[in-house]
Parts: sequence; structure tokens; C-alpha cells
Amino acid sequence: MRTTAFHLVTRKETPQDAEIISHQLMIRSGMIRKLGAGLYTWAPLGLRVLQKVEQIIREEMNAAGALEMLMPAVQPKELWEETGRIDDFGGQLLAIHDRAERDYFFGPTHEEVITDFVRNEINSYKQLPINFYQIQTKFRDEIRPRFGVMRSREFIMKDAYSFHLDQQSLEVTYEAMKQAYTKIINRIGLEFRCVLADSGAIGGSGSQEFHVIADSGEDAIMYSDTGTYAANLEKCAAVSLLDNRAEATEAINKVATPTQKTIEEVAEFLKLRKNQMIKTLLVAGTEQPVALVVRGDHSLNEVKAVNLESVASPLRMLNDEEIKDLAGCEAGFIGVKDLACQIIVDRTVANMSDFTCGANENGYHLSGVNWDRDASYHAVEDLRDAEVGDPSPDGTGTLQVARGIEVGHIFQLGSKYSKAMNAVILNEQGKSQAMEMGCYGMGVTRMVAAAIEQNHDDKGIIWPANIAPFAVAILPMNYQKSERVRRAADDLYEQLLSMGIEVILDDRKVRPGFMMSDFELLGIPHQVIIGDRALDEGEVEYRDRRDMASTRVNHDTIIQFLTDRLQA
Amino acid sequence: MRTTAFHLVTRKETPQDAEIISHQLMIRSGMIRKLGAGLYTWAPLGLRVLQKVEQIIREEMNAAGALEMLMPAVQPKELWEETGRIDDFGGQLLAIHDRAERDYFFGPTHEEVITDFVRNEINSYKQLPINFYQIQTKFRDEIRPRFGVMRSREFIMKDAYSFHLDQQSLEVTYEAMKQAYTKIINRIGLEFRCVLADSGAIGGSGSQEFHVIADSGEDAIMYSDTGTYAANLEKCAAVSLLDNRAEATEAINKVATPTQKTIEEVAEFLKLRKNQMIKTLLVAGTEQPVALVVRGDHSLNEVKAVNLESVASPLRMLNDEEIKDLAGCEAGFIGVKDLACQIIVDRTVANMSDFTCGANENGYHLSGVNWDRDASYHAVEDLRDAEVGDPSPDGTGTLQVARGIEVGHIFQLGSKYSKAMNAVILNEQGKSQAMEMGCYGMGVTRMVAAAIEQNHDDKGIIWPANIAPFAVAILPMNYQKSERVRRAADDLYEQLLSMGIEVILDDRKVRPGFMMSDFELLGIPHQVIIGDRALDEGEVEYRDRRDMASTRVNHDTIIQFLTDRLQA
Repeated sequence: MRTTAFHLVTRKETPQDAEIISHQLMIRSGMIRKLGAGLYTWAPLGLRVLQKVEQIIREEMNAAGALEMLMPAVQPKELWEETGRIDDFGGQLLAIHDRAERDYFFGPTHEEVITDFVRNEINSYKQLPINFYQIQTKFRDEIRPRFGVMRSREFIMKDAYSFHLDQQSLEVTYEAMKQAYTKIINRIGLEFRCVLADSGAIGGSGSQEFHVIADSGEDAIMYSDTGTYAANLEKCAAVSLLDNRAEATEAINKVATPTQKTIEEVAEFLKLRKNQMIKTLLVAGTEQPVALVVRGDHSLNEVKAVNLESVASPLRMLNDEEIKDLAGCEAGFIGVKDLACQIIVDRTVANMSDFTCGANENGYHLSGVNWDRDASYHAVEDLRDAEVGDPSPDGTGTLQVARGIEVGHIFQLGSKYSKAMNAVILNEQGKSQAMEMGCYGMGVTRMVAAAIEQNHDDKGIIWPANIAPFAVAILPMNYQKSERVRRAADDLYEQLLSMGIEVILDDRKVRPGFMMSDFELLGIPHQVIIGDRALDEGEVEYRDRRDMASTRVNHDTIIQFLTDRLQA
Repeated sequence: MRTTAFHLVTRKETPQDAEIISHQLMIRSGMIRKLGAGLYTWAPLGLRVLQKVEQIIREEMNAAGALEMLMPAVQPKELWEETGRIDDFGGQLLAIHDRAERDYFFGPTHEEVITDFVRNEINSYKQLPINFYQIQTKFRDEIRPRFGVMRSREFIMKDAYSFHLDQQSLEVTYEAMKQAYTKIINRIGLEFRCVLADSGAIGGSGSQEFHVIADSGEDAIMYSDTGTYAANLEKCAAVSLLDNRAEATEAINKVATPTQKTIEEVAEFLKLRKNQMIKTLLVAGTEQPVALVVRGDHSLNEVKAVNLESVASPLRMLNDEEIKDLAGCEAGFIGVKDLACQIIVDRTVANMSDFTCGANENGYHLSGVNWDRDASYHAVEDLRDAEVGDPSPDGTGTLQVARGIEVGHIFQLGSKYSKAMNAVILNEQGKSQAMEMGCYGMGVTRMVAAAIEQNHDDKGIIWPANIAPFAVAILPMNYQKSERVRRAADDLYEQLLSMGIEVILDDRKVRPGFMMSDFELLGIPHQVIIGDRALDEGEVEYRDRRDMASTRVNHDTIIQFLTDRLQA
């Protein structure tokens, strides 16, 4: 491709709404342009990258035996009524009414549609297992679309759905998908982690996420320093930090804390460490309010909280009035003694003794509180965020943290959807049974942004080889006036083209500095600079975008030099 | 691919709502499944064909210098307010409101979005000409979705948009697109015609359609028997059938036609030929009613009618009361004498003399009517449908008719959109001017259905080679029990696979007749039947799907035989 026949419009300015580097670089390089809130046009430059990502995904999904198909984007509301997921998705569902006033959604995911397809197509165990996938435009009406295509409303997803006679078969395909995802992200060339995850609105019995590691990642990834365990913070099990409960040694004592409400204030005032205190949080329950208790220095994990049967979803803290009604005090003085609601404590809290908590009376706390003797709880659960330095839940090593961008999520759904939608088959005994099901999502547009978050420097993008929009850039200095330069550039261009190498030749009439900085921004891996001065010495200049190292190469051997680099 | 690892679910029954053969065969072969009104899932079998069509389109568009990109499906309503096209599209626009109550449409076409993109990206003539395209899911909320993917609501379209400094440059790209479309449809392997067309709601100064020829086509294609002219009936110019107007020879005469209202009834009653009469049709105008007059044996062309400035769009005939008010009679007795409205006559009508028309009085007609002497008209226009046997409008030969399925439509838009949306550039003189624009649509999903309409027999589909889901089918008889058959089938399968040939091996445990008729239905071009009886003689059976001719081929030479056939 010659730049004059391409569409290359770079910008020096960083757009105001672009908070993260991938968004900034995608706009500045001209890969994407904003049409509206969370809506982006992929310009030819961006689409070249997107299609390479798509193709790698397609090849590995096919190799793993999945069958590509394509479902409509517009989905009848009735299907969602069968599974009862309309409330789970809430405002993210983009509602559509057609001219006949029938209700539809712009599909945010396709569990309902594929289950409907399969219940009409498959009726015997002989047709199982089967794994369908599609690469398709989805829509989720995010409240705060941001970060460009990282969290856009319209986006492209690869979604796969597998169907099985039994759990064992599901596990085989689940593992195959895990391997396929690993191959895909490896081929794209990104550093990533596969981690245990919460299943959220998709549901099912277990799931894992694939995270591209990047400082800007929205998710905290906890992993053991032995490499044997990794989980999203929202899912990461937090063990008890106390092996067992020590004997009570103090008497319970009511102490005045006239203006001290926060853990920090009380700890300082009473000369305590925060880990000698507990935090009692009152939240709305499915029936009655619930008290959730974590140690003073710990944070409540909201996902773990809402996954409790008695806690309402989404999580809601009681307001001041509700707290006053229940505990008789302000929020800063709630404690576990004589608290008239279900009390669920974190594993660590259950093993504490001689601790301090609110007195359920404004201006007072209780010290020397001990379970059984002074207060009691109804259940022990894992309620807190795991922390760096915690023992790993698998018993080997301690936890570390990294930031991750979620690009994939695989689920063992079990029979959640097949039962709700009556997707049954006849098994080997001729009996009707619900199919087991898995689903496997991968963010295609988001993968491109994640690749940039992980691969950039202060000059621009540094494309991994397999998804670069072009492999080689030819940058001729004075192409318009120097016939020698033009001939050398054109010859190299034609030769590389004939070898099937994706090459871009910048034949624009622009200043050398402008051209150089454009291609640094664009991040083409291999750049050949052709100018009169080097040609005088029978040479051209080669530049590696990643390390920006320049090498003078004999003009006669540049093809071989590039071929070697491309195969490296 | 082995059928047991594929998803192959054929049906014997023809679905009730499938009126045309492509719809029937796509459902019966399992290529598509209906999700809702005008919404279809493409099963793996169907998607294989669809992707081949897409790829051919992509390659030829790229070869013609067009740049692929991807715009959002969801379009802000504000852009459509700039061009004022909301009314033109009417109920076909699928309205969407997001959670913030902003208004969007599911894009039925992308003139507004691309023009917005270009006005932000391109500001100099140096960036022109440029031609962007995308292959994308669109939605048009058809009142009567039918014929499967031939007239579905959600469909895939290739849409391209070119931008130019001047009309001359537009014409160059328009011609290049015309050539690209020709190559695309030739490569897909379909018989087609490129015809003059009406530009409809897209607008602009001229357009041509590409029609795949098939008996079931919804459009009538008029073409001259010399091959020099072709047009959609709705656009086809109809010349005057009379070279000039003869002198009046009869006196005007009021004749009683007490119960005769239709042209047929009056002609029979008065012993006239229909071409001695005229039909006066009263239609709603943009301001006042208008009379449109065609010869008694001719049909009013509705598209030509609404393209007249004084005629309201969509076309509406006056009702009985309005006719009574204007003409003083019932519809069957309207005539041109003393009719108090604008009268526009067809070219042929303007040259008629001594004709018969209604008397504007119930129960009477006038014979011997002559223009100027007895009545007058305000304008002469081309108002009628051209007919088989008419002289071709280009002056060579006579018109014939064929049925066509519209798969492509290319437009010279001029500055309609760029002016409405202020998409301007600086020209060579440094002056601001609106860009000239072209647009080029091709129905991707519809192309698949059109291919079947043109290529089928009573047994099923007959795929053209370049879009067949598989090139070769291996049909082993008794694969489960005969080890020799299994080995021969597996060997051939592996060899063809290793040669990069797309092959499907039917390893299902089904009866031979069932297998044969499945693959006749599926239409795989080359079929190899492997059975014990032929193997006894060292042979296998080859069958050509198009002519269903069977050949015994030496088992040792089947690969060479197939290779020859595949290259033919």
C-alpha cells in the first residue's frame, strides 16, 4: 500500500476524553474515530489490525473443532423472558421496538438465541458434543462508556457456546477452549494470565477469565508467587489470617469515643492497631438487613457479598435512618453485641478475640469483645478482598497482585439455560434430559486496545508482529525530487509486495521529521529509511520500532535482512 | 470436515412460509434457521457460503483501490436530521432509544455516517479521490419481510462510498466500481445484467443496478435485443409509439356508455381497439391534483409518476369523492376535455388523434377527440411502462424482458449529501467546495439466495464452484462396517485435505439413499461415492452435481480426476 492510496490521518493532539494510552494512540494514529458516546468507526488502519485479531481467533477456534455460524444481532424479548435474565442485565440491554410494536434487544450476548437454535436442531445425544461460535457486533448500553473501544457500547465479540450430554464432556470442551484461548493470545503476542473468576450475570458453576497484563488494567489479578494459583480479586479466596481463636484475656469494656467514627480515628484514639478491631457493615438483604463483618484493616469484597443468598443484589448499604432503626446509633458506632439481625463474619474475624467494635450507641465503642461470651454470629464466610502477602488459597506461596485487562471469559454453565428453555435431548437410554452447556467469550475490539496498553512507548504504538497493520514501512526521504531515492523505494516496495509481505510506502510529500514521527506513532515493526546520503554509501537505514535501534544495511542485502527479521 | 464433526441437519419438509425456491432449499439444507420475522441465523453450512461471497467481494473491492473500514451499526438520529432523509426511509428505519433517552437508528445504509466521518477527516483535494467500503449487518424494518434472506430485515450489505473533487473523478471511480461488480458476480459464477435504475431514497443524478437473472426475480428487466440497452422496468424509457400526430379526421362525438367503465368494456362496446383510447388517472399532487394520461393499452409507471415535481410521493390515486369534486363523474368516465387540473400526457398520447376518452359525465364517453381542437395538455412526459416489442430507447433493436434479482446498486450521488452536511474541502485554488460523492451497495446475504434461485434443480441446490460450501463430498457406502470402504474414504479425505481442497466426508451411520439425497440437496459440486461393489472392480463412482452424470473412475486415478475437474 502507498500512503497516498491509503487513508492516513494522524493527529498531534491527544483528545480530551481519552484517559488511557490505547485510546489516545488509537485516535492519534487514526485507527478509530468517535461517532457518538461509546460508538467508534474503525478506519482502514484500525480495521487491518482488527481483522488480523479476528483471523487468529477464527483459525484457533476452527482448529479446536468449533463451528462458526452467525446469529441475528436483533433478538426477540420473549427469549429473554424464558431465562428471566432481563433484570440481571438491566439498563445494559438496548431495547428496540419494531414497526409492529414487538419488543427486541440489540444482543449483548447470545445464550438465549443459541439455546433456542439448539433446542430446535438437536434432539439426540448422537449430535453431541457440539460447539458453535460467531464473531459479531454486540451492544451493551454502558452507563459510562469510556476508554475508547476498551469499554465502548458497540463492540465486536467472539462468542462460543458448547452443548453436552454430561459434565465430563463439558469439561473436555472447556479445557479445549482454555487451550485455544491460550494459543490465540500467544499468537497475538501478548502477556496474559488465566484466572479464576466470578460468573456474574452469565451464571453457571465456574469460570475463568483471560487478562492481558497492563498497568492500566481495570482488574486486580491476585496470583501466588509459586505460579500455582491466580484469580480475579473479586473471586480470589481470602483465607483466615488467624489459624485458630485465642482464649479471651480481656473483660468487655465500654469506652468513650466521642467524635471517633472511622476505623482510623478510633484506632488512633484508643492506641489500637486496625487489626485489633472489626468493621460491621449493614447491607440490604433479600428479606431482612444483614450485618457483614470484616477485620478493621480489611475491605469488604462486594462480589463475594452479593453472592451470599441472604444479601440483596446489587449491594446496597443501609442509609442513616435504617441504621438508626436497626442499631440505634450512627454508622460509625455499629457493633456486633446485641445487634438484632443476621450477622455474617469473615473467616479471619471468626478467629479473633479481645477485639474492639462499635457499642451500638453514639459516642461509644466496646473493647475486649469476645465471640460466644459477648456476641455471636450466624455464619462464617469469605467476605474480604485478598491482599498482597496473604497466604495463597491453594496453600503454596503468598499472593502478589498485577493489573489486568479482561479479554476473555470462559464458563461452565451447566444446565442453567437448557433447563430454563427446555433444551432437551434423548440420552443413550432414550430418556429426555437437559443438555449441559458451556460458553466462551472473547473481546475482539478490546483485544486491540489491550495490545496497545501492553505495547507502546512515549512515541506511539509498538505492534506485536502478528497483528501489525503492516509488517514493513518504507520511508523515503525526498521521494518527490530524488529520482534515485524514488527508484530505490519503489523497487524495494515492489519486491516485498511480490513476496507477499505487507508493506506500506510513504509517498506523501511531507517533511522527513513528520514522516518519521508518523511511523513511530503507527508502530510498524520494521522501518526502512531510504535517503540520498546513505545511498551514496550503498546503504539504507533499518530501524526496529520496538527498541528504536538503527542499523545501516547494504542496499543489496536489505531484502535478505528484512526476511531474516520477519522470520525472527 | 467430517459430517459427524459438522452440524448437518436437513429437512424433508418445505416450510410453509417459504414461497420461493431459495428460501425452501436454504431451510431444507439447514443453511439458515428463522429466529423471528425477517431474522435468520446462518448455520455453519450457510455461513461457509456467505463467507466465500464476502471474500470475493473483499478481494475485488481491494483490487479496485477501495479501502475497507467499519462504521457503527447504531447511528445518531441527529445525522439523519441533517440530510432530512428520515421521512424518505419512513417505517424502514428501526428506531432505538438508549438509557439516556437519546435517539438512534439501526443503520439501514451509511451515507450520513460516512459523510460525517469524511468531513472530519478530509479537508484538501490532495486527499481525494478516496473510496471507503464496509461489509456490515444492516437492518431495514420491512413491512412484509419474506422470501427468507432475500428480503429479510437484518441482512449483510457491502456498502462503499467514494469522494471526489469533481464529477469527472466521480465518473472514473463509478466506472471502476461497475467493473469490480462485474468481476465479483462473474467470479461468484452468476448470470447477470447491469441495468439503468431509478435512484429512489438514496438520490443522486444517476444509478445502475446489477440483477441476477432468475425466473423468480421481483424486478422486470427490459433490454434491447441488440444488447446495447438495459434498464429496470421502473426506469426504462418508453418512446412515443407514434412518430407524429396525424390530422384530425373525426368530429368530436358524445356517445352513451351506460355501464361501461373500464377500458376493456368501453373498447368492446364501441368496437374500438384499446390503443384508440386514452386513460386519464387523477392522482394527488404536491399542491393540486394532477391528471396523468396514458394510452388505453398502456400502464402508468408509478416510479416515473412520483418522480414528477407536481406529483405527490408516494403515489396516491384520488378517491371517489375527490374525483367527483374535480371531474363531476365516477372514475370510469374521466376525460381530458374541460378537466380543471394540470394534465400531463405520455409521449405516445401526445401524438394521438381521433381518440376516445371519458366525457366527465357518468354514462358517457367522447370519441373523435383531438388535441388543441377539443382539449389541451400542460406537459408531455414519459409516463408509461415500456413493453416487450417497443423500440429500444437507444434507437437500436426492440425491447425484451427478463426477471431479475437486484444484488447491487451503484449511484452517482453528486453533492446531495456533502452539501446537506457541509462536507467541504479546499480545492486547488484554495477555495472551499462541496465534495462529489458516489455510493455502491451490494447485498451479500441476498447474493447467496440469488445464486440458488439461478442454480438448482428438483433435487436441490447446484452450487457454482467458487461459493460451494465444500468442493468435494466423499460418500462412503457402509462406512461403519466395511473396513475397506472406510480405509478408501479416509485415505481420499486425508489426501484431499492435504492438498488444501475443501472436502466433506459423510461418516454418519445413515442409509445410502438418505446420504445421497442429502448431498443432492446440499449441492456439493463433486461427489465421490465409495462402495464395496465398485471397489471390487478397483473403481469408485464420481458424480457431477450439475448434470448428475455418473462416471466410474479407477480408484488409483481419482485424485488426478478430481484435480482436473476442480481446475476446469
